Amino acid sequence: MGSALTFVAAQNGNRLRLVGTPVDQDIVDACRRDGRHPKLEQPFPAGTDFYYCGQWQDAVRGADFVIGAVSSFGVDWFLQDILMNMDPSVPVLSAAKGLTDLEDGTLISYPEYWERALREKGIQRHIYALGGPGTAAEIMQHDHTHVALCGQDPEVLRMMKKALQTSWFHISLTHDANGLESAVAIKNAYALGVAMAIGYAHVQDGGQERPHYNSQAAVFYQAAKEMVKVLQLQQADFDSALIGIGDLYVTVTGARTRKIGILLGEGKTYDEAQEILGGLTLESVVVVRRLAKAMAVKAEKGLVDLAEFPLLAYVMDVLENGAAKDLPWDKFTFENL
Amino acid sequence: MGSALTFVAAQNGNRLRLVGTPVDQDIVDACRRDGRHPKLEQPFPAGTDFYYCGQWQDAVRGADFVIGAVSSFGVDWFLQDILMNMDPSVPVLSAAKGLTDLEDGTLISYPEYWERALREKGIQRHIYALGGPGTAAEIMQHDHTHVALCGQDPEVLRMMKKALQTSWFHISLTHDANGLESAVAIKNAYALGVAMAIGYAHVQDGGQERPHYNSQAAVFYQAAKEMVKVLQLQQADFDSALIGIGDLYVTVTGARTRKIGILLGEGKTYDEAQEILGGLTLESVVVVRRLAKAMAVKAEKGLVDLAEFPLLAYVMDVLENGAAKDLPWDKFTFENL
Repeated sequence: MGSALTFVAAQNGNRLRLVGTPVDQDIVDACRRDGRHPKLEQPFPAGTDFYYCGQWQDAVRGADFVIGAVSSFGVDWFLQDILMNMDPSVPVLSAAKGLTDLEDGTLISYPEYWERALREKGIQRHIYALGGPGTAAEIMQHDHTHVALCGQDPEVLRMMKKALQTSWFHISLTHDANGLESAVAIKNAYALGVAMAIGYAHVQDGGQERPHYNSQAAVFYQAAKEMVKVLQLQQADFDSALIGIGDLYVTVTGARTRKIGILLGEGKTYDEAQEILGGLTLESVVVVRRLAKAMAVKAEKGLVDLAEFPLLAYVMDVLENGAAKDLPWDKFTFENL
Repeated sequence: MGSALTFVAAQNGNRLRLVGTPVDQDIVDACRRDGRHPKLEQPFPAGTDFYYCGQWQDAVRGADFVIGAVSSFGVDWFLQDILMNMDPSVPVLSAAKGLTDLEDGTLISYPEYWERALREKGIQRHIYALGGPGTAAEIMQHDHTHVALCGQDPEVLRMMKKALQTSWFHISLTHDANGLESAVAIKNAYALGVAMAIGYAHVQDGGQERPHYNSQAAVFYQAAKEMVKVLQLQQADFDSALIGIGDLYVTVTGARTRKIGILLGEGKTYDEAQEILGGLTLESVVVVRRLAKAMAVKAEKGLVDLAEFPLLAYVMDVLENGAAKDLPWDKFTFENL
């Protein structure tokens, strides 16, 4: 996503400085040599410079703002190595999608997680975030994409919007950072559920691989329902919840979470699925575990009824135990009489 | 859908009597001769009997209940020829999806439309309805499907559920008839919008036919948003609105509305699209026109702000004028600051 946003920002005449994480040394080498990311077909826009992570301070110097596009697995590195050491006056926009669960069952976004940790060290910094439905591959192909930027200061949000908005990259702005970040994180957990239903159905129909839109739609309904319930607990507003539903749509149709969900639904274990998919980072798995753990704590406190989250329980069960069974369809039906 | 429900009900040992409309004489002939619908591959379940529409009274005699599965184009025939003349003690379940707009901008479901017309003739009848995400083709292939039945009397709803529920056909029950029927009708209008975006993008990328999931997701977000706003006006409850979102999903992925939407998005006129698609009934077009008309009347009365429905306006414009333009993307973004 970091690379994809380079293509967007360059359209507006911005000069981009792309910094690798500590595991990206070879990728930075390849970018410098070939002018493109080894996993991408398109070359980077002219004027993009590439930095090893050890050079990040050079890259950040004089920047309008910094985009942090780490996966869940890079969140603590970004905190300790970068945020702890960066001039707090340089605005930061996070494109990470995920949540962290606290011991009391509270779910907080990565920006909030970082802000809290920085405050403990006496560093006051507000972190902005980008969330919404969009796969990096299609962004780079100039497919129309609608995302939202969230955070406190309207002027900073408008500055970032101006830098990133193009004729195909459409940007909304919202103060509902917690709601938006929650929505775009938990959709990964629920997209796994829809994809598992596809994989399970593939096995049941003897590998015909019919699309099974009816069952996808039935799980999509349940996914949307459970997402809205979680988002109500997170006090998300209407637009943030809907961005989450749009993000669920793109994730079950076009994203890598779809691939692992289908493999798990076909009966593979998590380890087997991970091996088949090779180098893919499986963020959706992280968010399922954290969401399930947080909801269990909330249930112990009487704040939620776990019976209202049968799809989350199913996804968690398949993830932990493999050997996907049929979905708990009866639990998805209701009687409003 | 009438034929599809035959496959469902037969699983529970029900005997089915399938009655054609006045335009189905040839189809009834074919069913009697071949034991299958000429447009379907699977033969009907054993014990299904076929009736010409002139014989409907024989078919209805002694029935537990009657399923009315007409399209929007058969609504008045079903009212005048069947409902006006049928014993009011035989329960009726409608599988039609659609709304009628009244002069004052009120949108009512077909069951309510029929009930009102019957009351004017002194006939008291309550009509039940089935709605939810499911294509007939996949129902016949035993794909897991979740629908809802709505209406007044819980005992009648449970009787119908018992008759139709199978291990793959999952049924919820609700009193929110107006909400459910509104949700499953208007989703057709909004699914056209998502499909138009696909068609328009196909032309823009020179016929590469990339999937364009990002832009689909962006329109899906807007579709869900406008649907929820319409459904709030219709006083739909939470579950009904979500069934509508699930139904939107199956319609943009697997239903015939997708086909006409893509053709219109590619720049075909409505007449051209209709010709290309041959015998398909285009119910989605009916609901767009009625919804747009009703919303215009509501706007004149100050009940709604049409600026909140840019996708509906776009769909209506393409439908009336052809020559699809790009979508009004900027109108889909928001600023919640």
